[in-house]
Amino acid sequence: MRKNMGEKIVIIGGVAAGPKAACRVKRLMQDAEVTIIDEDSLISYGGCGIPYYVSGDVSDESELRSTSFHMVRNETFFKDAKGVNTLTRTRALTIDRKQKVVQVEHVETGAKQNIAYDKLMLATGSRPFVLPIPGVELDGLFTISNLHKAIEIKKRIAGGKVARAMVIGGGAIGVEMAEALTDLWGVETTLIEFMNQLLPRIVDFPFAAMLAKHLRDKGVTVHLGEGAAEILGQEGKVTGVRTSARTVDADLVIMAAGVRPRSELARDAGLQLSPMGAIVVNERMQTSDPFIYAAGDCIEIRHLVSGKKFYAPLGSLANKEGRVAGDNMAGIPSIFKGAVGSFIMKAFDVCIGATGLSHDVALAEGYDADVALTAPSDRAHFFPTVDTVVFQMVFDRRTRRVLGLQGFGPMGDGISARIDAAAALVSMGATIDDFGTLEMAYAPPFSAAIDSINAAAYVADNICDGRLRKLSVASFLQWMTDFAMQPDWVALDIRHPKEVGPFVEKFGGERWLGIPYNEVRARYHELPSDKVMIVLCDAGTRSFEIQSFLDSVGLRNSLVLSGGFNVVRKIGVAWYPE
Amino acid sequence: MRKNMGEKIVIIGGVAAGPKAACRVKRLMQDAEVTIIDEDSLISYGGCGIPYYVSGDVSDESELRSTSFHMVRNETFFKDAKGVNTLTRTRALTIDRKQKVVQVEHVETGAKQNIAYDKLMLATGSRPFVLPIPGVELDGLFTISNLHKAIEIKKRIAGGKVARAMVIGGGAIGVEMAEALTDLWGVETTLIEFMNQLLPRIVDFPFAAMLAKHLRDKGVTVHLGEGAAEILGQEGKVTGVRTSARTVDADLVIMAAGVRPRSELARDAGLQLSPMGAIVVNERMQTSDPFIYAAGDCIEIRHLVSGKKFYAPLGSLANKEGRVAGDNMAGIPSIFKGAVGSFIMKAFDVCIGATGLSHDVALAEGYDADVALTAPSDRAHFFPTVDTVVFQMVFDRRTRRVLGLQGFGPMGDGISARIDAAAALVSMGATIDDFGTLEMAYAPPFSAAIDSINAAAYVADNICDGRLRKLSVASFLQWMTDFAMQPDWVALDIRHPKEVGPFVEKFGGERWLGIPYNEVRARYHELPSDKVMIVLCDAGTRSFEIQSFLDSVGLRNSLVLSGGFNVVRKIGVAWYPE
Repeated sequence: MRKNMGEKIVIIGGVAAGPKAACRVKRLMQDAEVTIIDEDSLISYGGCGIPYYVSGDVSDESELRSTSFHMVRNETFFKDAKGVNTLTRTRALTIDRKQKVVQVEHVETGAKQNIAYDKLMLATGSRPFVLPIPGVELDGLFTISNLHKAIEIKKRIAGGKVARAMVIGGGAIGVEMAEALTDLWGVETTLIEFMNQLLPRIVDFPFAAMLAKHLRDKGVTVHLGEGAAEILGQEGKVTGVRTSARTVDADLVIMAAGVRPRSELARDAGLQLSPMGAIVVNERMQTSDPFIYAAGDCIEIRHLVSGKKFYAPLGSLANKEGRVAGDNMAGIPSIFKGAVGSFIMKAFDVCIGATGLSHDVALAEGYDADVALTAPSDRAHFFPTVDTVVFQMVFDRRTRRVLGLQGFGPMGDGISARIDAAAALVSMGATIDDFGTLEMAYAPPFSAAIDSINAAAYVADNICDGRLRKLSVASFLQWMTDFAMQPDWVALDIRHPKEVGPFVEKFGGERWLGIPYNEVRARYHELPSDKVMIVLCDAGTRSFEIQSFLDSVGLRNSLVLSGGFNVVRKIGVAWYPE
Repeated sequence: MRKNMGEKIVIIGGVAAGPKAACRVKRLMQDAEVTIIDEDSLISYGGCGIPYYVSGDVSDESELRSTSFHMVRNETFFKDAKGVNTLTRTRALTIDRKQKVVQVEHVETGAKQNIAYDKLMLATGSRPFVLPIPGVELDGLFTISNLHKAIEIKKRIAGGKVARAMVIGGGAIGVEMAEALTDLWGVETTLIEFMNQLLPRIVDFPFAAMLAKHLRDKGVTVHLGEGAAEILGQEGKVTGVRTSARTVDADLVIMAAGVRPRSELARDAGLQLSPMGAIVVNERMQTSDPFIYAAGDCIEIRHLVSGKKFYAPLGSLANKEGRVAGDNMAGIPSIFKGAVGSFIMKAFDVCIGATGLSHDVALAEGYDADVALTAPSDRAHFFPTVDTVVFQMVFDRRTRRVLGLQGFGPMGDGISARIDAAAALVSMGATIDDFGTLEMAYAPPFSAAIDSINAAAYVADNICDGRLRKLSVASFLQWMTDFAMQPDWVALDIRHPKEVGPFVEKFGGERWLGIPYNEVRARYHELPSDKVMIVLCDAGTRSFEIQSFLDSVGLRNSLVLSGGFNVVRKIGVAWYPE
């Protein structure tokens, strides 16, 4: 531990990975001289908390820079409590790898200085991507890149200067900012996303659609498949945004179009970068120069499902990477294998999460990927707080390997419970069968006896073995909105007659057959054999049972609607009877 | 799938495993003739919901027997919806394995009948253990063994006939029943447990103690290390309980002293049983007779940490085992590997969970077991709903394998999230290092950037590598209650002076040194080198940092209080200053 007496450790970057590594390496080598360099004056803040600061959930920005025991993590704190030096308002200019020296410049005075290192760590983070469109220099356009901008945004909102806002980008930060603006401040907010769904590449269509409906229900205007073409302004101030489809007035524009690694320093020093510009590191967080480490939003890491390198700028990963970097700088051979890309987000009253690969991504990666979509109860159906959750398991038909899981449900920790358990398994190459017997702690207030994650695995098992033939929600919605263009089909709605009645009335008894679940065994002879039958229930479970039975009596023309009406209602459709 | 045309499948037992297997095998082999036999009239109910039915959270017992779509699972339902025959009020008397015949008796008429099978499944469940003490036959003493007893208990309470109740047994059912009686009905309830802690063998001392305090705070009288000696009565009715320490008046006595497998039928048929009387099955749920399957509370299964067989009577496992039995009866070679014994429980406003082995059990099993106890924030410390949670990781010092995890926190799904993720990893033999980098989906409303489970792994890592020397909470509480008998020690309390003040006042400045966390580096020369120093903070994290520093300046006489004052306060101590 204490072999490297008095080593000089220099860390460039004072948020997340940097401070974590600095404190860890100092604890392991108290004799080391550890210095953090950052060009900002505010360091070691929880950047992920910015939307909650803007919303007002977090009242003061200093809370984002405080420890859990209410000390502000400033230069004095690092010096006194951690024994770590910090040089703020100090920009690293160049790295001389031969001499092991970093040249820095004090931002205010312009004074330059050489700082020698034995080991150097780059925690230079990311910067927001700014679309190359006219008007991005206007006052009133913000990226969510640091605490100063967050403070300014909140100041304007709190000062009553923002009546209408536009958020560009339907990723996590965009959605969180849309909520922050709408929920507590009542700002009239429009969210646009260039792709045809929210959270592209993170979740698949049904989940993005359920999220979009919830945002709209909460008052956010959401436009999909719509890019920003120009930021409009008058007298240097933002007045609106022209998109590919319309012009929207706005006093404030948030550009949340993703982030890019900040790696110029590494590039100029000749360190190896990925094609997208992220710093390449090994499992010990060493760059191509063994004396230089890197961690956080500036690096790429291995995806533990696909095995490929990917870019995952997340505070939680930055901290883990930072600790591993700290260990290795102190001579402890810890490794960071990579990540499965777990994701969780609050959006008003709901929660959406994912881990591993989405169906779209899995297909693009060449897997023989399929999905099991379920909408079961989140706890014992008789427990008072029971609610419906939606899970989709992505799996490879050939190997039965589970590639990912997505979840949507009421705000709380229930979705993350399943996402986290799935992440642990997915990273180990687990199969559908491992998920079927995955042990979820059970008591009625917490889960159903057959947990929703087990239920999803059961559905995947039935699909994979060819016992369950399904129709995707997306296809069903298409069929419903354009009866003419689709093959000859009928609905077999096995819900309670009270639920089925309005559908029969609206779509006609020829199109919409209602036979209750528990009467199908006695009445199957009423069913057509010459049309596609879509079996419909609330969660999809009963429909599968009916399909199994119909198959056994020679009616093999049925398809189960995945996730059933529980999912359809959460997506929201115009044709749903009152 | 449909090779075995018209097979006769007979299943003895109509709760959980039995119905699950029946419906699964019927779906897989629609031509099979599937029959469930049960001596009760009420079948397929959620037995785990009984405490919530008694409490009033579930208003009608039929809800416990209903599907999520509100159909009551009775004989008609199984016939019409599932195509499964049920013979209720029918007791299985003997199994003739040679002839493949079960002899049954109709409970009401006494009529006997032989039922032939091609495959038989035993889902005979468990029965409550009744202590061999006088008075257990008195009216007013109940076990929680079936829905009829639950109905009768609730009837008496709702009828105002129960002012005082005694619950014998501090396992999960005992605690849940104590809550049910106290919370909504206001029954004056006493809970006694023969062992010296609640939930013995499931959790370790600090967790049992935090639970006991919470129960007491909520009005339950809890006596530990106290067995029931006699049930007292007058005119055939319960009037109280004499324990090893006192006599307690009671109108109602719940005996919740554990359950035993019901395996007489299997034993009489010559099937292999475990020493404790559970039916022995292989991973395909086959008994020692390959034509007879068994699942649920009547079998033993493999513990996936210890590798040994154990008894785990849980509805969630019964359902999984039942599905695997159903698969195999239909020719699908599914397997059920075993379980890690995951546990979760609501108790009033808190939640307690565990997976894998407790420290006590791990030591008894011969592991070089140690624990890492932590009390961190359950989500970003700046998020409004933040709260403190307590986790303890049990690990093997020699192999670094994680053997188990226990958690305690506010009611919600946050504890089960960590328990479930841990269960997935523990069953795969994961190490401390795997837990350190375990990817927990992160956003401020759901977790801290360094999740509590990662934090526990970090502590375990530091302990395992000899960097962290600790004092257990149990030892600290002993030292505090008997200063005389312990070695010469001082407290080094590094919390805020406002927090430390009352302690210095109460215990004296000689005993209780207060130096704030961020001043120790400057003031360590004030500290004694000739006494044991217990470093004290709220969560234990700062204390470890201070220990690392003190070690580096030659003061190697410190011990960190595991879990800090966060755990001490949750356990509750008489000496805590006002």
